[in-house]
Amino acid sequence: MIPAELQAGVLAGTGAVQRRAMAKAITLLESTRADHRAQGDALLTALLPHTGQSFRLGISGVPGVGKSTFIEALGLYLIGLGHRVAVLTIDPSSTVSGGSILGDKTRMEHLSVHEKAYIRPSPSSGTLGGVAEKTREAMLVCEAAGYDIVMVETVGVGQSETAVANMTDMFCLLQLPNAGDDLQAIKKGVMELADLVVINKADIDPDAATRARAQITSSLRLLGLHGHPEHAHHDDQIWHPQVIQISALHNQGVDSFWAEVSRFRTVQTANGRLAARRQHQAGAWMWERIDAGLKQRFREHPQIRARLDDTTRRVLAGELPASTAARQLLELFD
Amino acid sequence: MIPAELQAGVLAGTGAVQRRAMAKAITLLESTRADHRAQGDALLTALLPHTGQSFRLGISGVPGVGKSTFIEALGLYLIGLGHRVAVLTIDPSSTVSGGSILGDKTRMEHLSVHEKAYIRPSPSSGTLGGVAEKTREAMLVCEAAGYDIVMVETVGVGQSETAVANMTDMFCLLQLPNAGDDLQAIKKGVMELADLVVINKADIDPDAATRARAQITSSLRLLGLHGHPEHAHHDDQIWHPQVIQISALHNQGVDSFWAEVSRFRTVQTANGRLAARRQHQAGAWMWERIDAGLKQRFREHPQIRARLDDTTRRVLAGELPASTAARQLLELFD
Repeated sequence: MIPAELQAGVLAGTGAVQRRAMAKAITLLESTRADHRAQGDALLTALLPHTGQSFRLGISGVPGVGKSTFIEALGLYLIGLGHRVAVLTIDPSSTVSGGSILGDKTRMEHLSVHEKAYIRPSPSSGTLGGVAEKTREAMLVCEAAGYDIVMVETVGVGQSETAVANMTDMFCLLQLPNAGDDLQAIKKGVMELADLVVINKADIDPDAATRARAQITSSLRLLGLHGHPEHAHHDDQIWHPQVIQISALHNQGVDSFWAEVSRFRTVQTANGRLAARRQHQAGAWMWERIDAGLKQRFREHPQIRARLDDTTRRVLAGELPASTAARQLLELFD
Repeated sequence: MIPAELQAGVLAGTGAVQRRAMAKAITLLESTRADHRAQGDALLTALLPHTGQSFRLGISGVPGVGKSTFIEALGLYLIGLGHRVAVLTIDPSSTVSGGSILGDKTRMEHLSVHEKAYIRPSPSSGTLGGVAEKTREAMLVCEAAGYDIVMVETVGVGQSETAVANMTDMFCLLQLPNAGDDLQAIKKGVMELADLVVINKADIDPDAATRARAQITSSLRLLGLHGHPEHAHHDDQIWHPQVIQISALHNQGVDSFWAEVSRFRTVQTANGRLAARRQHQAGAWMWERIDAGLKQRFREHPQIRARLDDTTRRVLAGELPASTAARQLLELFD
């Protein structure tokens, strides 16, 4: 299909026709071939006016926390409310293994076959920056196709949480009711990203879940992220990260999770932060791609390629100051 | 002075002659003029074989933790042991105020006038990356001049702690015995950088200091940074971050602080990690400067300058996909 057909299929198609156009559009955008990239840019620019109407929900959590079960339960609940739901994945390990461990549609067996759901696994090659770019672009395709809830999930390892938080309106962190989990999240800087912390599997040990909730709330307060109770009357203007308990397996708490998300969306829309966050993300995304492009060009420059190994060796051996080496290499780059 | 005179003054001078040559060398290296930069690179390359013999100690802590008092007490103690001590500072606020709030030599009144000490305030202009580069280069000058202990201090705000940890052999974090201080440090990713956590002002509230020590030790353990007691027999091969209490004001614990530093140095030298850390730092420093140089050139490119504002506006307004904008701008950059 040429981009014009893809565009029409994404925007005006229905059912299987639209689904096929979406898949082909995303595949085109994932291609690294220069001619594909030019077509992809044209397609993306044409789709852009039809994007931005969805709510973008980031979901993270370590393996075993129950992300698939949660996303399936939430997706089916949202479809029941009349929404169309897209689920995208950023899996850093897929770039190593060449295939997404999270991409298997069988892990969400009911959602994946639902006509109102669209599930796309993680791009399986490239740097994290490249994978994140493809996922952002896939998100725009889903929005142009009329999916009004886009979830982007990632595993709680590596830097992918930051990538997901930087492309979504709201970042939710799934936690197990384990002591120490919150410290790990704080250490990795993920707690700071969280707009909502969800303690899953709360049914297994309700006491532990209650303790975990109190501890995380107290940590958020010490970190200055959570409002003090006496400031609760500000809550209609400023969002403070919340901590809730659910049990996705038993479908308990999915409705109260969605109530929190809806409250977040209302507050952040009214105070202007949702729009500001999207603007900031767009600007940061542009610079992230510029930086990556500059570095790639630098590494591929013939004179740099010829000198880089030897210069690096001399820097590591203490024969050449690192700053001098950088200036010498930059002089070769013209 | 021409670089050859500066070189001779730094390497072979004594007393005031050497001190003057060091000051002029560092000022030359801080200059952004292209001819100065070329002279500076030549000087630095000539000095490099005479560097690397010192121990590089990073010291961080929030304002009020007592860094000046601690560094003065430590510096005088080390001079008493026969060392020569250089103190450099990275103060992110100095680039805003145009002068270093930490640079005032009166804050270390005994150390600053000692003939075996050399104190240089933070460079007062440029980005944090630029300031860090100048400080790294000043460190090399001090080493070439025979200072065998170089301390690099910074305030516990902003990203400067990472910069200091990335240029030193050992990173020490000064903490007050306050609840929540450790969570702040964990949140900012500073706890992860710390090879040694020092609870200062332990005399004011010994119980609080003891509680803080236990809490930080437990946090380090939960973060996987601190060895379990039963693994203590591994301590001669692998360093685990330690937590100690001192009172710099009353000169209590400076000797045990230094004993920990010496033990760290022995362990890290024996297991090869000190050398590996310096190699890694040199390579990362080179790439950090390359990235900064590429970005600067990009921003200064005439065609980019002409288009950047309008392109950015269109990206923020949602008229142009960020990734497409990045590719369009990169095409102009040749």
